[in-house]
Amino acid sequence: MTAVGIDAVEIWTGKLKLDLAETFAPEMGDDPAKYTKGLGLEGSSFPDAYEDIVTMGANAAHRLMERKDLDPDDVGRIDVATESAFDNSKPVSTYIAGCLEQVYEGDFHHANKGERKFACIAGTQSIDDAYNWIKAGRNRGRGAIVVASDTALYARGDAGEATQGAGAVAMWITENPSLVELSTEQGYGSADETDFLKPNQQFPSVDGKRSVQVYLSRMREALEDFESVAGETHPDDYEYIPFHTPFPGMVRKAAVLGYRHMIRGTDAEEALTDRIGPQPRRDDFDSREAFDDAIRDYMDDLKETEEYREWYGETIEPTLSISSQVGNWYTGSVHIARMSALRAAAEAGDDLTGDKLLVGSYGSGAQAEIHEETIVDGWEEEALATNIDEQIERRYDISFDEYEQVHDRHNHDKRTELEPFTQPDGEFVFDGWGPMNERKYTFV
Amino acid sequence: MTAVGIDAVEIWTGKLKLDLAETFAPEMGDDPAKYTKGLGLEGSSFPDAYEDIVTMGANAAHRLMERKDLDPDDVGRIDVATESAFDNSKPVSTYIAGCLEQVYEGDFHHANKGERKFACIAGTQSIDDAYNWIKAGRNRGRGAIVVASDTALYARGDAGEATQGAGAVAMWITENPSLVELSTEQGYGSADETDFLKPNQQFPSVDGKRSVQVYLSRMREALEDFESVAGETHPDDYEYIPFHTPFPGMVRKAAVLGYRHMIRGTDAEEALTDRIGPQPRRDDFDSREAFDDAIRDYMDDLKETEEYREWYGETIEPTLSISSQVGNWYTGSVHIARMSALRAAAEAGDDLTGDKLLVGSYGSGAQAEIHEETIVDGWEEEALATNIDEQIERRYDISFDEYEQVHDRHNHDKRTELEPFTQPDGEFVFDGWGPMNERKYTFV
Repeated sequence: MTAVGIDAVEIWTGKLKLDLAETFAPEMGDDPAKYTKGLGLEGSSFPDAYEDIVTMGANAAHRLMERKDLDPDDVGRIDVATESAFDNSKPVSTYIAGCLEQVYEGDFHHANKGERKFACIAGTQSIDDAYNWIKAGRNRGRGAIVVASDTALYARGDAGEATQGAGAVAMWITENPSLVELSTEQGYGSADETDFLKPNQQFPSVDGKRSVQVYLSRMREALEDFESVAGETHPDDYEYIPFHTPFPGMVRKAAVLGYRHMIRGTDAEEALTDRIGPQPRRDDFDSREAFDDAIRDYMDDLKETEEYREWYGETIEPTLSISSQVGNWYTGSVHIARMSALRAAAEAGDDLTGDKLLVGSYGSGAQAEIHEETIVDGWEEEALATNIDEQIERRYDISFDEYEQVHDRHNHDKRTELEPFTQPDGEFVFDGWGPMNERKYTFV
Repeated sequence: MTAVGIDAVEIWTGKLKLDLAETFAPEMGDDPAKYTKGLGLEGSSFPDAYEDIVTMGANAAHRLMERKDLDPDDVGRIDVATESAFDNSKPVSTYIAGCLEQVYEGDFHHANKGERKFACIAGTQSIDDAYNWIKAGRNRGRGAIVVASDTALYARGDAGEATQGAGAVAMWITENPSLVELSTEQGYGSADETDFLKPNQQFPSVDGKRSVQVYLSRMREALEDFESVAGETHPDDYEYIPFHTPFPGMVRKAAVLGYRHMIRGTDAEEALTDRIGPQPRRDDFDSREAFDDAIRDYMDDLKETEEYREWYGETIEPTLSISSQVGNWYTGSVHIARMSALRAAAEAGDDLTGDKLLVGSYGSGAQAEIHEETIVDGWEEEALATNIDEQIERRYDISFDEYEQVHDRHNHDKRTELEPFTQPDGEFVFDGWGPMNERKYTFV
């Protein structure tokens, strides 16, 4: 079987930074630790006045094409995943193709363009579409550009305001990839939930407490479903486990749940029994409530064990470094988690070829998907090729007053003009509205 | 290679009918022939007060599951294509799964749910996703429910007001299908166009004249791209050619263009030379304009030939019968065109097993896709199983005054209450708003 997976990744962050500890917390009258420790977030990325989901996606895709020396004929499809679309009919992928056609000879008229929406999981679903298209023998030797691009904005004053973010991830999906190969096996946990919605509105309505529960429940189902086709999992099987990361604090909850599940009935559970007892089993409890309480207690103990902390530090913590600087990128989130870990390993000189990742994607509404990835030869070069650290470093640090203007600028209900804080250079920018009320773009 | 394709189809029309000749034309002060002859439309379907894209999609899917004796475990994915979504994050497929879970034992937690948006072509893209998923060996023996559901409403007074419509098509995509097998080969014609948009709005902005040109240009590109992988096409190769049908008049234009392209350099062109001359070739003209004029003249002559008229009557006309009664269903449109033709053939007792369809899908914005389908054993039973004729017949015929109320009822910017005109029976209905501002549904 031909290996199919992610050949290359480029990441583009919005060019502005809101410092949560220094700028946001004081204005909210909060202890900065509420954000830095509780949520695990240092800052959020925001788009400058000339940026939006199209420019960020097109700029990431442009970097990808330049670095991999691609021309339009190499690209058989352009798929965009977003929950920040500004048109109910025309897909963002057509705008991105239009941008790229400004700077390349040739065109993308032969390329299938698509757009997927399912909260934050649509990026992974789009990778799957591309994988399946290649495996189905329909790609004619071409690859797919998958772009996950979002401006994760909440209404001012909403509890989610501290977890905003903006950025895009462009991924090149091919046969014989140079970064990771995807497993055929997938696990799903999917239910009709109303934890997070945008009913005819730009900014989300969120039931925060329920959203955490739904994330954990769907992830558990997805892991069980994955194991039903791929066999039992064990914490030692995976070098890293990138999860969807709305904020790193959420991943802390998911990680302990995943660890508990994976060690059940293994030597690892056995080794902990002296200290924290065996895992509670449903059959030993009269009521669901009593069982849930026991599970909660067990997990509280589990996460303090040396074994868990070491595993967490090695397997989960490295996936959070980009997120902690840029906030929630919705569809791009799990894909920056993967890259965070692989970059750290490449910088440390680790040899991971042949090692495995378990990737846990999630979208509110609600669905989790879990699959395995095998790290392949060439991964170090790919992992080190993005300049995301430099981009993060270079962001313009906005004041609270500037933040308020930036939020208004990107509010679809307003048409606020705003002088940019940064200078675009060799990139696509938003350039005003056309005669059909369409957004227009140019390369500067 | 395992055959993969459409095993079964169910169609659900909105329960109200606006008669264009009797009700709409007089109110507009128009000759009824503007609609019946010019557009080729007799009437449009509208959703009753308790209907929307979820109820129509869920009811079509429910009929499909009942008729094919499916239970949730048989279903590996539920994909919805729509450009009428009412939420920017949560996909319509989760609502449809929630509906179906009200009437089935078991649940769809194991099923991947998705939503695609690209104007009217997303239904075909979703079929392709399902096809590729099965061909990639990820389906675990399960099939996919693909639902194309739209309420194609235009602003009151817009030129598109005469081409509205509302309905859903549910398709069951499986290995060894009983209706049609899909070709691996596909042709695309795709460009960044602004012919039809919905920028942060429910009702479209349309450049009508440009939209017709773009449809034809993209369709020509898609046919050329298809031929580059599947070989030359010939009019005699296909029993029917279902096109995307915003209104039958559009298909008349596409058909003559397709016919001209397919006969070029064949015996069929040769046979017409005595009467209308050979096809103009670009090399024989100094300017693009002169060439285009010559092509237009040739096509005007071509469409009056007996050969073309006979081919059109046999290959295209039968695809238009449902559309002419229900109007534009956006994502569902090309799929009711396919079923119109197959139903007519089954009723006439034709033997089509092994015969081919060429299917031309289109979405504004803009993209055309062309693929081939092979009609397979069992098709007559499948074609005759839907009760769409009965549903069309049973629609409540609204007055112009009632039409105005119905339009308001489905306008997202209004929350107009309206007494239903029809009585739901054994179906899903919209049941008001929940605490998160989400739409709620129940089976009555």
